[in-house]
Amino acid sequence: MSAPVVTFLSDYGYRDEFVGVCHGVIASRCPAARIIDITHGIALGDIHSGALALRAALPHMPAGVHLAVVDPGVGGKRRAIALSTATEGHTLVGPDNGLLVHAAEALGGVRDAYDIAGSPVASRTTTTTFDGRDLFAPVAAALASGTAPGELGKAIAASSLVALELPAARRDGAILLVPVISVDGYGNLELAAFELGTGVLTLELGGHVRDVQIVRAFSDVPPGELLAHVDSRGAPAIAENGGSAAARLGLAPGDLIRVRL
Amino acid sequence: MSAPVVTFLSDYGYRDEFVGVCHGVIASRCPAARIIDITHGIALGDIHSGALALRAALPHMPAGVHLAVVDPGVGGKRRAIALSTATEGHTLVGPDNGLLVHAAEALGGVRDAYDIAGSPVASRTTTTTFDGRDLFAPVAAALASGTAPGELGKAIAASSLVALELPAARRDGAILLVPVISVDGYGNLELAAFELGTGVLTLELGGHVRDVQIVRAFSDVPPGELLAHVDSRGAPAIAENGGSAAARLGLAPGDLIRVRL
Amino acid sequence: MSAPVVTFLSDYGYRDEFVGVCHGVIASRCPAARIIDITHGIALGDIHSGALALRAALPHMPAGVHLAVVDPGVGGKRRAIALSTATEGHTLVGPDNGLLVHAAEALGGVRDAYDIAGSPVASRTTTTTFDGRDLFAPVAAALASGTAPGELGKAIAASSLVALELPAARRDGAILLVPVISVDGYGNLELAAFELGTGVLTLELGGHVRDVQIVRAFSDVPPGELLAHVDSRGAPAIAENGGSAAARLGLAPGDLIRVRL
Repeated sequence: MSAPVVTFLSDYGYRDEFVGVCHGVIASRCPAARIIDITHGIALGDIHSGALALRAALPHMPAGVHLAVVDPGVGGKRRAIALSTATEGHTLVGPDNGLLVHAAEALGGVRDAYDIAGSPVASRTTTTTFDGRDLFAPVAAALASGTAPGELGKAIAASSLVALELPAARRDGAILLVPVISVDGYGNLELAAFELGTGVLTLELGGHVRDVQIVRAFSDVPPGELLAHVDSRGAPAIAENGGSAAARLGLAPGDLIRVRL
Repeated sequence: MSAPVVTFLSDYGYRDEFVGVCHGVIASRCPAARIIDITHGIALGDIHSGALALRAALPHMPAGVHLAVVDPGVGGKRRAIALSTATEGHTLVGPDNGLLVHAAEALGGVRDAYDIAGSPVASRTTTTTFDGRDLFAPVAAALASGTAPGELGKAIAASSLVALELPAARRDGAILLVPVISVDGYGNLELAAFELGTGVLTLELGGHVRDVQIVRAFSDVPPGELLAHVDSRGAPAIAENGGSAAARLGLAPGDLIRVRL
Repeated sequence: MSAPVVTFLSDYGYRDEFVGVCHGVIASRCPAARIIDITHGIALGDIHSGALALRAALPHMPAGVHLAVVDPGVGGKRRAIALSTATEGHTLVGPDNGLLVHAAEALGGVRDAYDIAGSPVASRTTTTTFDGRDLFAPVAAALASGTAPGELGKAIAASSLVALELPAARRDGAILLVPVISVDGYGNLELAAFELGTGVLTLELGGHVRDVQIVRAFSDVPPGELLAHVDSRGAPAIAENGGSAAARLGLAPGDLIRVRL
C-alpha cells in the first residue's frame, strides 16, 4: 500500500519557515504521509490565483488530502472547511473563501462539506494568524491518517460555501472583451474562456490593431513573435515565442483584451 | 517504524543546485531518511534571521536531525558542531556561529556538544566553500542512520559555543525603544520581546504619534489599518490588515520603534 | 530495498503549479518514487545554466532517473530523449537541446540514447506547451517503475545528440580572455576552465588593473575584498568575502574577464 498523500498549496512564500512548519506538523501527526508541494508562490492573499492553480493541479494529483491556504481573512469570521468530492478519495482542506470550490468542481464537484473551525485536532494557541499550522495542517494530517471528516467538523450545506466568480469574457458589439485571468512565470497571458477557433486572432491593444496567429506550439511562429494558443490549463492564452507577452504588452491579471469577432 | 527525519534550513536560495545537492548527499548516505525543508530563503549570510526561523520551526518538527547552514564564515576558523538537546531525540548540525543555540534552547537547551570539523564521514574535497555538501550533510546523514554523535566528532563544552545576542528592548525615560527583529514575507514586523498588554499601543514614528490597536486577529481592524498583536512565533508584532506594515512604515530589521509607556 | 529516486531540475520557477503538477504525475504513476528537487530556479529558458547545474549536481545524486526540463523549444522540432550513462543505474530524461549531455559526461558518458517523443506512456493532450507534465514526467515515472528505456522510445545514435558548447577561455597575446560562465545566488562568478595556479591573479577590468589573491577560503582575505579560488563545482571563480563579486564588478554570464598571464 502506498503512503497517504497530502498536497499543499499556499501563498506562504519561500523566505520564512511557514511552509516547513506545516510540513513538520503533518509529519509529526501522520509520519507516513507523503507531502507534495504544489506551489507556495501564489501572490500574497491572491485567492483568484490560488484557486486557478489549485484547479489546474488537482486533476494530476494522486488521491489524498489537498491542503490549500491563501487566507487573507485568517483569524476573522470566514469559515474553515473540509470538502470531499465526487471523485473518490479526495478531500480538500482550507479557508471558505472560494479558494477550494473550483478545484472541487474539477474533481466532480463537492459531495460533502464540513466546518472544521472547532476541530478537536486543532492546536491550542493564543495566536490567530497561522491557521495553516494550528488548524489546517492538523486536520489534513488527521484525514491522511484515516480519520473521517465527520469526526473533524460538523456537516454544512455545500450550497452555503463561499463562491468565487472568475472573470468572464463579454460581448460588446463586434468586440469580445476578454479579461486576462492570470500570468505565469514565463509571462504567458491566460485569458477567460472563449472559443479560440483557428487562423488569426485580431486584437485591439492600446489603440493598435494586431493580428496574432492561432497556433499549437510556440515555435510555430518566429522567435519574438506573439501567438495565441490553448495553454496547458486548457485555456485560451497569448504568449510570445521566447519572451514574455505580459512584459511586451504591459498586461496584468484583470486587464481586458479586445478581440474582434 | 517511521523514517528517520532530517530537517534542513539554509540561505542557499532557490536558484542554484546547492539545496538539491545536499538532499542528494543525504539520500545517498541514508536512503531511508525523510528530508523536511524548513526554508532556504534566509537572507544571504543573515545568521540572526536564520536563528529566529530555526527557533520558531523546531518545536513543530518531529524528532530527528536538524541541519542548518547560514555560514558566512565557511572555510574559516569557526567550528562545525552537532548539538543534542534536553528534549530527547533531537540533534542540531551546523556552523558554530550562533545559528543553532536559540533553537536548541527551544528544545530544552544543549545537552551535549561536539566539534565535527574533522568528522570521519566528511567528504574529501579540495574546495572549502560548500561545507553543507561536504561536511554537514554527511554528518546529518550519519546521525540519521543511527551513528552516535560521539563517533562523528569530539565532545566540547556547551559553554564554549558561540552565543548570538538577539536585539532587546530598552527603556529610555517614558519611552521603550523596541528593535524590529525580523520582517516576514507579508511585511509583518516582529519586535523584540516586551509585554504587549491590551488596548492601544502608542508609537512615535518619524516624529508622528500613532495609536495602534492591540488585537487578536488582523480582521479586528479595518483593511489597510495597522494593528499590534502577538504573532505566530509568540512575539509582539506590528502588522497591517491586508498590507505590508514594513512597506507602510519603511522599517527593516534593526530599526527601532519608540513605544510610549 | 530503497525507493526508486527521480531527481528533477527545471526553469519552471516557484510561482506556478508546474513543478507540483509534475510531482503529482510521477507520484500517480510510480507511488514508490522519491523525488529530489535539484532546483527549479534556473533562469527561464537558459539551457547553459541548466546544463551547468545539472552537471554539478548529478555526481552527488543516488542512482535513479534524472528529469531535467529547460525547454524553450517545447512543442517544436527538438527531440525528446532518455540517456543511460556509463555509470550504472542512471537515466537522464529531457529535451535534446544540450541540457543533458554534460551531466551525462559527468556520469561516464552516454551509453544508450532513445528518442521518447512518441512514448506509449505519454499523456494524450491537445496542448503542446507542457511536455514536463505530458511526456517527460510520465517517462521518468515509467523508468522509475522499472520499465526499460527501449520500451519507452526508439534507440538513436549518441553521436546524433545536440551538443552544447560551453564558453572557453582563449589566449590573446599576454592576456587570457576568460568568460564568466555562471553567477550563483551569492554573486560568485564562475569562470571557464583555466589553470588558476597560486599567488595572485592579475585582472584587467574596465581599464583598471586589479590584483586578486588566489586563496582556499573566503575568509583568507578581509571582508569586502575580492578573491580567486576553486569553487565547489571545481571551477575557477572570483568571489568577494561577505559580498557579491557580480554586483561589485558589474559582471554577468557571457562577460569576459581579462587575466594577465
